[in-house]
Amino acid sequence: MKTSNLLLATTRETPADAVVISHQLMLRAGLIRPLAGGLYNWLPLGLKVLRKVEQVVREEMNRSGAQELLMPVVQPLELWEESGRAQDYGPELLRFKDRHDRDFALGPTHEEIITDLVRKEIRSYKQLPVNFYQIQTKFRDEIRPRFGVMRSREFIMKDAYSFHMDRDSLQETYDEMYDAYNRIFTRLGLDFRPVQADTGSIGGDGSHEFHVLAESGEDDIAFSTESDFAANVELAEALAPKGERAEPTEELTKVETPNKHSIEEVCDFLQLKKKKVLKTLLVKGATEAAPVVALVVRGDHELNEIKAEKLELVAEPFEMATDEEIKAAAGCSAGSIGPVGLNIPVIVDRTAAHASDFVCGANEDGFHLIGANWDRDATPTLVADIRNVVKGDPSPCGQGKIEIRRGIEVGHIFQLGNKYSQALNATVLNETSRAQVLEMGCYGIGVTRVVAAAIEQNHDDKGIIWPEALAPFQVCIVPMQMHKSPRVAEAATKMYNDLKAKGIEVLFDDRNERPGVMFNDMELIGIPHRIVIGERGLDKGEIEYKYRRDEKAQDIPETEFMDFLLMKLK
Amino acid sequence: MKTSNLLLATTRETPADAVVISHQLMLRAGLIRPLAGGLYNWLPLGLKVLRKVEQVVREEMNRSGAQELLMPVVQPLELWEESGRAQDYGPELLRFKDRHDRDFALGPTHEEIITDLVRKEIRSYKQLPVNFYQIQTKFRDEIRPRFGVMRSREFIMKDAYSFHMDRDSLQETYDEMYDAYNRIFTRLGLDFRPVQADTGSIGGDGSHEFHVLAESGEDDIAFSTESDFAANVELAEALAPKGERAEPTEELTKVETPNKHSIEEVCDFLQLKKKKVLKTLLVKGATEAAPVVALVVRGDHELNEIKAEKLELVAEPFEMATDEEIKAAAGCSAGSIGPVGLNIPVIVDRTAAHASDFVCGANEDGFHLIGANWDRDATPTLVADIRNVVKGDPSPCGQGKIEIRRGIEVGHIFQLGNKYSQALNATVLNETSRAQVLEMGCYGIGVTRVVAAAIEQNHDDKGIIWPEALAPFQVCIVPMQMHKSPRVAEAATKMYNDLKAKGIEVLFDDRNERPGVMFNDMELIGIPHRIVIGERGLDKGEIEYKYRRDEKAQDIPETEFMDFLLMKLK
Repeated sequence: MKTSNLLLATTRETPADAVVISHQLMLRAGLIRPLAGGLYNWLPLGLKVLRKVEQVVREEMNRSGAQELLMPVVQPLELWEESGRAQDYGPELLRFKDRHDRDFALGPTHEEIITDLVRKEIRSYKQLPVNFYQIQTKFRDEIRPRFGVMRSREFIMKDAYSFHMDRDSLQETYDEMYDAYNRIFTRLGLDFRPVQADTGSIGGDGSHEFHVLAESGEDDIAFSTESDFAANVELAEALAPKGERAEPTEELTKVETPNKHSIEEVCDFLQLKKKKVLKTLLVKGATEAAPVVALVVRGDHELNEIKAEKLELVAEPFEMATDEEIKAAAGCSAGSIGPVGLNIPVIVDRTAAHASDFVCGANEDGFHLIGANWDRDATPTLVADIRNVVKGDPSPCGQGKIEIRRGIEVGHIFQLGNKYSQALNATVLNETSRAQVLEMGCYGIGVTRVVAAAIEQNHDDKGIIWPEALAPFQVCIVPMQMHKSPRVAEAATKMYNDLKAKGIEVLFDDRNERPGVMFNDMELIGIPHRIVIGERGLDKGEIEYKYRRDEKAQDIPETEFMDFLLMKLK
Repeated sequence: MKTSNLLLATTRETPADAVVISHQLMLRAGLIRPLAGGLYNWLPLGLKVLRKVEQVVREEMNRSGAQELLMPVVQPLELWEESGRAQDYGPELLRFKDRHDRDFALGPTHEEIITDLVRKEIRSYKQLPVNFYQIQTKFRDEIRPRFGVMRSREFIMKDAYSFHMDRDSLQETYDEMYDAYNRIFTRLGLDFRPVQADTGSIGGDGSHEFHVLAESGEDDIAFSTESDFAANVELAEALAPKGERAEPTEELTKVETPNKHSIEEVCDFLQLKKKKVLKTLLVKGATEAAPVVALVVRGDHELNEIKAEKLELVAEPFEMATDEEIKAAAGCSAGSIGPVGLNIPVIVDRTAAHASDFVCGANEDGFHLIGANWDRDATPTLVADIRNVVKGDPSPCGQGKIEIRRGIEVGHIFQLGNKYSQALNATVLNETSRAQVLEMGCYGIGVTRVVAAAIEQNHDDKGIIWPEALAPFQVCIVPMQMHKSPRVAEAATKMYNDLKAKGIEVLFDDRNERPGVMFNDMELIGIPHRIVIGERGLDKGEIEYKYRRDEKAQDIPETEFMDFLLMKLK
């Protein structure tokens, strides 16, 4: 394609409201343009990239045996009432009435629709398992859409839904999807990790998120330095420290800590490292006998609410105790609580339980205890993993240490179980001709989001650096002063035609612009391979080549150029 | 693909609410399933067909130099207010509020969005002309969605919009689109006609509709028997009869026609042919001097309101006179009006003006005049073309006669002029650096509708007969008793693998079903080429082949089969 036939809407200015780099670069490179909050036009250059993502996703989904179909964007609300999500989903589900006053919604996801289809179309266990997917427009009325297409309201998603007679079959398709996702993100040339994830409010058991690793990611991911273990930080298990706990060496002593509430303040005042202090938090309990329970973690650790919530003694959903409850249970305010002498269940983190001669609140405002020791001074009701892992922790897989990096979630696979099939009564006849509720899995990829994530991971100060598989064009040809030199025009046009004839996607910058403008644009839009054709090179029988990630260009003899380029493109 | 991996949702029953054949067959063949009124799921088999249409459309649009982009489904209403269509569009434009109470609509078309984009992105005449298109989901809240995907609420449309400095450039792109549309529908293997059309409420000048010819079409199209002239019946010009009008031979005589109002009643009573009677209709006039005018057409012809409305004397929009106005102007009721002695402008159709010794109302209830003649008894204020053409009329192109056939509109190209660019102030700098309002064209194809139209045109009592370009699979393999005969299984599997290796789209019916069930399904879903492999054929070294349109199958020697098939598929 020639730039004269392409809306090349590059801009120099960085848009003021774009805070993340992918949003800035997508605007500056002319991939997208905002229409309204969270709504974007995909310009021709951006759409080319988007279609590449779609195509790789489609090919690998087909390879896995999934069948593509297409469900409507507009969904009747009654199916959401049947599943119970009409109540649960909140205002992200944009609801409206049609001209006949019937209730509809814009689909943020399609579990209800596909389950309704399957309950009508699949009758026998012989037709199972099946896995249906679509690549389709979704809408979530985000309260604060931001980061461009990273968190927009209208977006394109690949969503797949599988149906099964039993958990084993579900696990099998789940594993196939796990493999397909690995193939997809590998083919797209992204540095990514599959990550063990929480199933959250959608329910069900097994779940992995696929994260593109990038500094700007919203999620913290815990890796092993020595295995391919990866989990959402909030899900990674913090192992108990090895070895025996050290014996007490200090006496329990009450010290004054006037107006010192936070761990920082206490440590600063007592000249201690944070790991020396144990933090005690009171939260709502799950039982009438213990409406408030204490959670103890080390001062340098963070409480993990998801882990705590799963304990029998802790209320679900997780909720902090009120000031009144704290006063009643501990006799002090929140900053002075400690496990010693506390008359409620005390749940102690594994690492905190390994501490000796520790400092803690004295359950008296303005006082802390030093030289405290477990068993001697206070007894844990339960020792459990209730903190986030931190860098340097041993990996729960048994190999290596924990490393933490940031990721952008681009895919998610779920074992839903029978949440939707039960609610919508999606059953088929089993081998004994009895109606049996189906098991279900769902598998999403944020197609539009992948484009942004790829940029977050692949850019420099000049612009985007597309992985080959995502590049809107593999090669660009930049002719020098073509409009003045018929010789350059001829050589560049010949190169363009030769490359096109070989099926290479090539962008020919035939604009009458200064070389600097063309170079900047081609770097900004991230074309991997740049060919420069100019008088000087032609005189020497050379063509200039530059790979987008290289610092410098190289001059290649004309006669060898095509072989050289094809090798680069291989 | 194997049928065991495909949701083959064929049914024997014809759904009661499906009245047109394409709707019936799309349900029966398992191409679509209803989700709610006017909303359809495209099942895997149907989606394959839909994608074929999309791909041909995309290739030919790209070939024409148009650039693909993608605009949101959800549109801010304020752009519709700016264009004035928020008021004009009516309830087909489904409007709603987002969670922040801002007004949005589901896009039924994207003129406003593209014009907004262009006014922001295109700055100079040097960037023009441009033609942008998308293949995208649209929503029109039809009051009575019907005929399946032929008139659904959510549908897929290819919509293109071109922008120009002047009318000549617009005409050039319009002609390119005309050619591209001809290529598209030709490649899709459809019997179609480009038809001159009215620009309707969208405004502007040139316009063609592309119609797939089918008995069940909603529109009447007038063709020439001898040229490629084709126009919407309402737009085709009715020429004046050739030769001189015959001289009067009868006296003007008033006859009693008690309670005879309609042309049929009068003809029946007076024993006349309808062409002998002239029908006089009173309609609202456009001027204060003549608030009511008379329109006269022959009794066997139909008044054409679109043509009448374009006359200076006739009010726009076209409206019939009230009973009171008729009484005041003609002194009688609607069934007894005639041009003789009428004291208002009398506009006479060209053919009616050629009549002599005609019958007409006497402007007196219960009476008609016979032997009436123009000039002698009444004088036309104006002779004009105000009727629909009928079969046998001379074609307005000058060659042949008019033939009328029914068509399904699948495409429409429009010269919009500056309707939207003016309203949204879409200007660019011209060669003298002055801001100039753009000229605009728009070009639509109802992608989902094409699928239905293709079926309306190509089916028999066994099911769909896909044109090759639309077939979800080119070839199907039906093995006989494969589950009992390892020899058949082996031969069929080999055939399947051989065909796949040649890049042929083949459906292998590996179900454990009776031959009749498989034959019926393959015919119902319309696969063009059927291969049957069975013990008997293998014994004789033959393979059975049947083309979907053929009555009978043929046995082809195994050794020649592949060459034979490839020739059929060429």
